[in-house]
Formats: sequence, structure tokens, C-alpha cells
Amino acid sequence: MDKGAFQAYLIERQSLIEKTLDEIMPPSSHEPRTIFEAMRYSLFAGGKRIRPVLCLAAAEAVGGEINTVLPVACAIECIHTYSLIHDDLPAMDNDDYRRGKPTCHRVFGEALAILAGDALLTEAFGILARAALMNPGQRERYVSIMVELAHAAGARGMVGGQVMDIEAEGKEINLQTLYEMHGKKTGAMIEVSIVSGAFLAGGKEREIEALRGYGKHVGLAFQISDDILNVIGNKKIMGKNTGSDASRGKLTFPSALGLEEAKRKLEEEVLQAMEKISTFDEKADPLRHLASYVMERHF
Amino acid sequence: MDKGAFQAYLIERQSLIEKTLDEIMPPSSHEPRTIFEAMRYSLFAGGKRIRPVLCLAAAEAVGGEINTVLPVACAIECIHTYSLIHDDLPAMDNDDYRRGKPTCHRVFGEALAILAGDALLTEAFGILARAALMNPGQRERYVSIMVELAHAAGARGMVGGQVMDIEAEGKEINLQTLYEMHGKKTGAMIEVSIVSGAFLAGGKEREIEALRGYGKHVGLAFQISDDILNVIGNKKIMGKNTGSDASRGKLTFPSALGLEEAKRKLEEEVLQAMEKISTFDEKADPLRHLASYVMERHF
Repeated sequence: MDKGAFQAYLIERQSLIEKTLDEIMPPSSHEPRTIFEAMRYSLFAGGKRIRPVLCLAAAEAVGGEINTVLPVACAIECIHTYSLIHDDLPAMDNDDYRRGKPTCHRVFGEALAILAGDALLTEAFGILARAALMNPGQRERYVSIMVELAHAAGARGMVGGQVMDIEAEGKEINLQTLYEMHGKKTGAMIEVSIVSGAFLAGGKEREIEALRGYGKHVGLAFQISDDILNVIGNKKIMGKNTGSDASRGKLTFPSALGLEEAKRKLEEEVLQAMEKISTFDEKADPLRHLASYVMERHF
Repeated sequence: MDKGAFQAYLIERQSLIEKTLDEIMPPSSHEPRTIFEAMRYSLFAGGKRIRPVLCLAAAEAVGGEINTVLPVACAIECIHTYSLIHDDLPAMDNDDYRRGKPTCHRVFGEALAILAGDALLTEAFGILARAALMNPGQRERYVSIMVELAHAAGARGMVGGQVMDIEAEGKEINLQTLYEMHGKKTGAMIEVSIVSGAFLAGGKEREIEALRGYGKHVGLAFQISDDILNVIGNKKIMGKNTGSDASRGKLTFPSALGLEEAKRKLEEEVLQAMEKISTFDEKADPLRHLASYVMERHF
């Protein structure tokens, strides 16, 4: 798969996810309409669908087909979207823009934004539970994924990472804590996206463990890349104000390691991700390109 | 079952739920500790456990045993607790006290309170998914309950009701809208508590439909009772400031119907709830007492 083929693949997968999310959560004539509007506003605010694309690509890498995996991919995107809505709230990061658009609470107010996040999180498990109910043959796997997902998204995963992030502001924290924080805040959900896709598609244990390793490195690469973009990126790429981490006294990879060392570390993580799936055949090519894609966002 | 026996039953069931919640969510030495502290603070803040007690009592009413139902009862209490934490936030009802104790955000700050709510909601589905995974024979039922619960708690249920409540403030709304709002905000979760308990315990369709009717009337009675308490109650009973609905210009049953008519309506709902389960034997006695218990909170 060359770069052009990957670009076509990426666009095709992204639009499949858009279409499926739109079917799962259509514009509602159901009252109260504003909650559905707020949910859709953030769900269709131009996200790059990296987690669901990784989920589908992991299923393909183990030779599975992607239809049974689509509900998982969409549920993960709902959870990701809820986390962005809540992270942007005034009581949290207080961000007015996300991907170049006003954040949910700026458009709908704080109360609606909190509730839209709550409803997206609830709907994520609704999507998975309905899929599990309708597919008896895959039910056990869907249920296992719900267990993993609740863990990755909850107090021991993403929510815990967000708490660590808040508590670290303005404090001296060490690099070990930074790794742990990002492992929870970003890494856990990226890892579960990949592992659940491969697991549901019938991947062997050995393959899933390799993909878990790939996921850990990609997750870390993703966060380092985000930190670097926050320093050197511009508002156009990020769709929000940059330099905000530094002004808040947040520890980031560039601030802890220096910019050049952070870039080197990013490249190393991408290479290690590739290495983890080196024994996979060409069906894993999208995953290989996705690892580079994470890095190339700012080059 | 006389009143004394019911009191003993209620205390016994409440402590079973406390104990199970404590086992499911023990004090954590896991970092970040504050998120677990905030979750436990609200989960063990003196709630009367009405929803989980109704869930267990419904299982007993159809002759089932309560052990398999306990995870459902606890998951429902986690969802109820998350909804209280978020409802109390400054951006929502802005309540400083709940059950006589400072609200979660007053103790832990707004960011932690939002995240503790998020984590409790996530954990609720984690509890159910783990129960479904560990009980293959009951897996389909647990999954069905997750579908129902996601619906009852989400944008078409509890969250939607909360949105209607916010949007109704200071507006002229009619009695029909008031019923619809409470049906979503309080009714849906009370109904699902009862129906899921009976369903998981193997209740017949006819029994479950009767209990659904019971749940609808009890849910409405519960809300009318709450509204009446808000008018005539005192801070000691409610554990928070009363009269707050009126000062916010909220439409309530007493303000829409007058206090006496609201009391009459409350009694009628309780009687109708009883009527729905009139063919059940003495195993439904706890449910009968629970319907009265809702009403007697303020007499």
C-alpha cells in the first residue's frame, strides 16, 4: 500500500464511520431536540476519527471483516467525543474552540454540554449492548469489549488520567508521572480501540498481544505529537489556541525532554509500533501508515 | 407483612446494597485517589437506595432470588448517584447541599465532580458487563437490561428529562409537559429498576407488564411527593434548602394543581400502583409497602 492508496483508504474509512454514526444518531425530531443537536454538533465537528479507524484497521490486520466491528468503532468515537466536550468545559480546560469551531458549551451553554457528554457516554454503551443483543454468536465478545471499554474510559483509565492532568497543573511532576498520566488519559482508549477491533474480528491471542503493544506505542506517539503541536503548531492546524499548555504550567514532553528530544522520542515510538506488527502481512499496511500519520501531522 | 416487618426488611435490604456497593467500589489505593474518594463520597452520602430496593423487591415479587439482581441494583444506584452529582453542579441546579451534606463539587471542586459523575456512569455499565461476562446463563438478560438502562438513562430518558427541566425554567409550560418531563427525568429510571429486577429474576411477560405499570405510578408518585416536600418540607427532612423550586419559577405539581389537589393526585397514584400488582401474592408485599413509603415521607 503506497501513500496515495493509504490516503484513499483513510478517506473511505472516515466516511464509512461518518455514515454509520449518522445512522446510529440521526437528527432527531424527538423532544427535547436541543440535547440531540448538542450531541450531533460535537459528534460531527470535524473529528479525524483516528480511534475508530484504528479499530477497523486492527480488525482488517487479523483478516476480519469490519461490519461487526463498526458498532465498537462508533461507540469508541462517542466516548471520545463526550470526553472532549467535558474536557473543554470552563471547570476543566476552559477551551472556547476545538477543531476551529466554538466548543459545545460555547454554543449550547454549560448545562447542555455536560448533559450532551453524559448522553454520548450512555449511548456508547447502548450501541454496544444493542449489538450484543442482536448478534448472539458474537455476544460474549461484545460483552468482553464492554468490560475493557468501561475500564479504559473510567476512573482507572481516561477519567483517571484527566484527574491526574488537573492535579498536575502548576506542580512539579516527574517524567514517570507524565507517562502514567498519558497512558491513562489518551493511551488506554487508543489501546482499547485497536485491541477490541482485533478481538472482535477473531484475532489470535498472539496477534492481539502484538497489536496491544502497537497500540501502546501509537498512543504515546499520539500524545507526544499533540504536545509538540501545542508548542510549534499554529491555530490553523490545531483548530484551537496553541501554547496553552505552557501558559498553564503543564508538564509536557517538550517541556520535560526539550523539543528535539521529544521529536526523537516520537520517532522512536512510531518505529517501535511498527516493530510490534512486523510479522503481520500486508493487511496490516493501514496500521503501519496510521502510525506514521500520527507523526507526520506536524512535519 | 406488617409495617414493622417492612421496616426491618427495608433496613436489611438497604444494608445489603451498602455492603455490595462497598465491595464493588472499595476505598482505592489506586492513583489518582481523589477520583475514587469523590465517587465514594457521593455514593455513600446517605441515599435511601430506593431504586435498588425496588429492583430487588421486584425480583422477589416474581419469586426470584436476589443475588443475580444485585449487580443491576448497584449499577442503577451508580447511575442515580452520577445524575445527582451533575444535577447539583453550578451550571445546573447549583445546589450546595444534598441530604444534609455539602454536594460533591463543594467538597472536591467542579472538575472532580464532573469527572466523578462520568466515572460512576462508566462504572455502572462496567458492573453490568462484568456480571454478563461471568454468568453465561444470564448473559442475554443482562445485555437486554443494558439496552433498557442506556435508553432510560440517556437522551430519550433521564438526561432528556433534565434538559426539559432546564429549558422549562421561567417558561409557561402545561401540565402535559410536566408529566412528560418527570416521566423521563425520574420515571424512566424508577421503571427500569423495577422491570429489570423482575426480568432478570425470570418474571413472566404478564408479570413484568404489571410491574411496569406499578413502576410508572410509583415513579410519578415519587416526583409529586418530592415537589410537595419542596413546598412544605423542611430542611431537616430534605437535607437541602426547600422552596427552591418556587424561587426558580419551576413548574411543579403543587404550583400546577394546588397543594391539596397535588396531595390527592399523589394518593391516587399510590393506589393505582397497588392496583397494578393486586393479583400478586404476599411476595409482592415489600413493593406494596414501598409504594406507601414514597407517599408517607411527608405525612
